[in-house]
Amino acid sequence: MNRFEEKTISSTNVYKGRVIELRLEEVELPDGNHALRELIDHPGAVAVLAITDDNKIVFVEQYRKALNRSIIEIPAGKIEPGEDKELTAIRELEEETGYGSRAFTYIQSFATSPGFANEIIHIYLARDLYKVENPAPGDEDEFIRILECTIEEAKQMVQEEQIYDAKTAFAILYAEKLLDF
Amino acid sequence: MNRFEEKTISSTNVYKGRVIELRLEEVELPDGNHALRELIDHPGAVAVLAITDDNKIVFVEQYRKALNRSIIEIPAGKIEPGEDKELTAIRELEEETGYGSRAFTYIQSFATSPGFANEIIHIYLARDLYKVENPAPGDEDEFIRILECTIEEAKQMVQEEQIYDAKTAFAILYAEKLLDF
Repeated sequence: MNRFEEKTISSTNVYKGRVIELRLEEVELPDGNHALRELIDHPGAVAVLAITDDNKIVFVEQYRKALNRSIIEIPAGKIEPGEDKELTAIRELEEETGYGSRAFTYIQSFATSPGFANEIIHIYLARDLYKVENPAPGDEDEFIRILECTIEEAKQMVQEEQIYDAKTAFAILYAEKLLDF
Repeated sequence: MNRFEEKTISSTNVYKGRVIELRLEEVELPDGNHALRELIDHPGAVAVLAITDDNKIVFVEQYRKALNRSIIEIPAGKIEPGEDKELTAIRELEEETGYGSRAFTYIQSFATSPGFANEIIHIYLARDLYKVENPAPGDEDEFIRILECTIEEAKQMVQEEQIYDAKTAFAILYAEKLLDF
């Protein structure tokens, strides 16, 4: 889909970090004028809506420095270079919650901030959960608390803005529909 | 909520642009170790789920340079400095679609990419729409096409990844529930 295409006139790399890169692009607009776009490159991420046999959603609480607070989210993580994204999702679920799933399916992908970033997040559904015996350890700079909540409890946490991110907001609506709430 | 707080040890501004800023922060983790966080500051945004009297959702198609393609989204825009976010939402709906609303309500706010950005998007619901006679013009570097689609058509566009962003994915699930689809 190239409607209203903005052609790149020039591109300058400003920062290349461990997770993100920042690029400035001068573009030509459909009317011939020029504009500057500030763009973040991100490797992409996965997230998992994991639902227990008693219809609870598995969440993790973690501190998000960008927000200067901790929030409650569905398990998620960045895609490592060359890693298959479904395997990333299975790995992240195990690392963050200790769960494996016998019914792991793809839901949907979306860009989180298309105005300035190319981050795509791929959402999976994990049901028929079991506890992995010796789960793989998580990242050493990641501190998390696991919660299992009913849909009602999750909706309450949305109201209180303890749940406060796009993928989790989407996942809760999805779970509500799935569980016919 | 400060569980697992990461205390800032040092902060360096790397880039200050028209829309975003990039900051590097060295933080102290709960176990005393240090880590680097790459953080994007963003002024925040609003988005509007506008539903016509015949239960169609109003979308805009626009080119997103970050994705190098055009996608179909609900109307949205950045919050200007000092601007009340509900007024931003009303303004963006008018500028992008020519619609006003006699039943404008707040739905929910969420961070789009809490792993690296502080962008919060505030979602509003607009019903009882009317055409504004002389709508305010939009940004001069913004080229958009307006679409009005049924829920079924919107779900098809999700399948085809023409709809491909977090706020719109959330809005469609919300509309499905609202319209009891």
